[in-house]
Amino acid sequence: MLPTDDRLLLGPGPSPVSDRVRVALGAPARSHLDPDMMAILDNVRAQLARVFRAPAGAMTLAVSGTGTSAMEAAIANMVAPGSNLRALAIVTGYFGDRLAQMLTRYGAQVDVLPVEWGKAVDPADVERALGQASYDFVTVVHAETSTGVRNPIDLITPIAHAKGALVIVDAVTSLGAIPLDMAAWGVDVCYSCSQKGLGAPSGLSPIAFAPSALLKRVACRSFYFDLALLSSFWIDRKYHHTISAPLVYALHTALEEVEEETLERRWDRHEATHVQLVMGLDALGMRILPPSSARLWNLNAVEVPAGVNEAAVRAALLTQHQIEIGAGLGPLAGRIWRVGIMGSGATSANVTRLLDALPAAIKTAAHA
Amino acid sequence: MLPTDDRLLLGPGPSPVSDRVRVALGAPARSHLDPDMMAILDNVRAQLARVFRAPAGAMTLAVSGTGTSAMEAAIANMVAPGSNLRALAIVTGYFGDRLAQMLTRYGAQVDVLPVEWGKAVDPADVERALGQASYDFVTVVHAETSTGVRNPIDLITPIAHAKGALVIVDAVTSLGAIPLDMAAWGVDVCYSCSQKGLGAPSGLSPIAFAPSALLKRVACRSFYFDLALLSSFWIDRKYHHTISAPLVYALHTALEEVEEETLERRWDRHEATHVQLVMGLDALGMRILPPSSARLWNLNAVEVPAGVNEAAVRAALLTQHQIEIGAGLGPLAGRIWRVGIMGSGATSANVTRLLDALPAAIKTAAHA
Repeated sequence: MLPTDDRLLLGPGPSPVSDRVRVALGAPARSHLDPDMMAILDNVRAQLARVFRAPAGAMTLAVSGTGTSAMEAAIANMVAPGSNLRALAIVTGYFGDRLAQMLTRYGAQVDVLPVEWGKAVDPADVERALGQASYDFVTVVHAETSTGVRNPIDLITPIAHAKGALVIVDAVTSLGAIPLDMAAWGVDVCYSCSQKGLGAPSGLSPIAFAPSALLKRVACRSFYFDLALLSSFWIDRKYHHTISAPLVYALHTALEEVEEETLERRWDRHEATHVQLVMGLDALGMRILPPSSARLWNLNAVEVPAGVNEAAVRAALLTQHQIEIGAGLGPLAGRIWRVGIMGSGATSANVTRLLDALPAAIKTAAHA
Repeated sequence: MLPTDDRLLLGPGPSPVSDRVRVALGAPARSHLDPDMMAILDNVRAQLARVFRAPAGAMTLAVSGTGTSAMEAAIANMVAPGSNLRALAIVTGYFGDRLAQMLTRYGAQVDVLPVEWGKAVDPADVERALGQASYDFVTVVHAETSTGVRNPIDLITPIAHAKGALVIVDAVTSLGAIPLDMAAWGVDVCYSCSQKGLGAPSGLSPIAFAPSALLKRVACRSFYFDLALLSSFWIDRKYHHTISAPLVYALHTALEEVEEETLERRWDRHEATHVQLVMGLDALGMRILPPSSARLWNLNAVEVPAGVNEAAVRAALLTQHQIEIGAGLGPLAGRIWRVGIMGSGATSANVTRLLDALPAAIKTAAHA
């Protein structure tokens, strides 16, 4: 029943795991309260602080769930019903919208700043929106996985702070793949996942609260996502939940790989594979949806050529070439493919393999 | 940094994983929407329905988090603020109390039926409590991990149903280790974990909603735990979160092992190792806390002998014998050890190894 053959994961995530990370999954188990485990968790907290480039005094840890659980933890500890907190949700795609939903579920008054899917938010529009009402929070997705767009967090944060709003940033698809600097940019809350830029399997999701955010925490309604309880486990070694040893080992090892490579070289590697892909697609007459100034390096929204059956192409890549790419979401369903070249999968060889297979898959799909 | 030597996990969980489960973690990755993954998830749903002995029409799946996340999912889909729902929380220990906290956080009006730690609830007390007010829910822990007590779910459920209350059962420490039969007992909502009786690592937690519970679902405030969204992923193959492939592989494989052994023989095996442990402890002059009628087979609350430094004994077992056992929680801290003999760890050889090491560790602790 379990797969026996490898598949090249070039979708929106999970990205491929390295052999080293895969082996780490099977290291001898330790319980969640074992001294060995606690030493590893201390290390993971420090690794995450460095990889987020979190400011001094930030609290960093990993939520025992996927990226969406970290999104919920971010909101659930900053917003509560009855608190009358107001949020401006910048929605540049599916995940910006998910953040707006999460804010609403947790009782914030939410105004949406909508942006056309495929474009980045214009900081001037943020400034204008923040001038129309008083907001406690701005939420924004750094790397919008649904559109392949990079939003200018570094420009948005000072605008929000000038208006007294904290900034919650979704870095699910950016951490470890494209430049991100919590401290330099002044991000107040930032969360991510393990299975994209970092190159671990999913299931354990990094989150960082800057001191500015820790000061404004609310009593969390959720038990599982309560930062007070999470930190009592991660820091004070008090039982809260049974963290998954294989996932801890994998995340720790993936973070080791990130730091051995250095963040800068890792970002460069993602840029290089992006450029290679764009040039190769251009030679095939294919285009990337977002304007070049706003393109992610690691998640490429590739326009489906006219007349091509996009689902049939994905199926042909999957079954005949053992390559996974992703479909479009929401208004971009049927209009784009989402090609993730990230983590340990961001190699020139993988791009070449996809560029070789794609024309063949399009031909197969045309005759299907 | 990662452990290289094996440790025998005889605490309250995680239990040891078999080689087969460990190997499954490293099987070739598939994304959360891959057809191969969907086929495995279909299988896991069916496996869980059988292992829970869920009634026809039940919804079974696994929450992407630990047992506490499944507890929160159970409550978050049945209780909402403003619904004026009333719950009777039977509290026989730490996890019964956690359920009461969860109910309160999600807006239920909660009355607690407290039971002395180390004893099972008396069904007559449940009947009396249910006669004093009208309740929508009764919550109860089947296997109270903090005390080693088994509560008589089969007797409680008909009493609750006669009064019009649904029964939410925590089976975190019972599923796969001691008899549990949702359908025969009439359990309405049941949840568990992967890392105890089932023998997988933690991080993916089984849950089952009987049709009686599905009829009474509320709009879930949480996004991550929303059953409507979870089932849209598990059943309708719509993206909700990126389920962790290694954890799915491990749980699927562990459930295969459970069913190959058969539940009945697995229960018998846990009973046999329990009896062996109790007899061995008796020979050492040591006793189990709960009365014999209410003892769990897989989680043994062992009274710390007078004058023994319990923490030093655990430390000696850990460092000199590579055996983990658990400490007491709450009012039983310092008074008991929690010895879990479960999952693939429930073998005669493991019990013998512990019984051999324990006197030596007590001697070491006395001289420390």
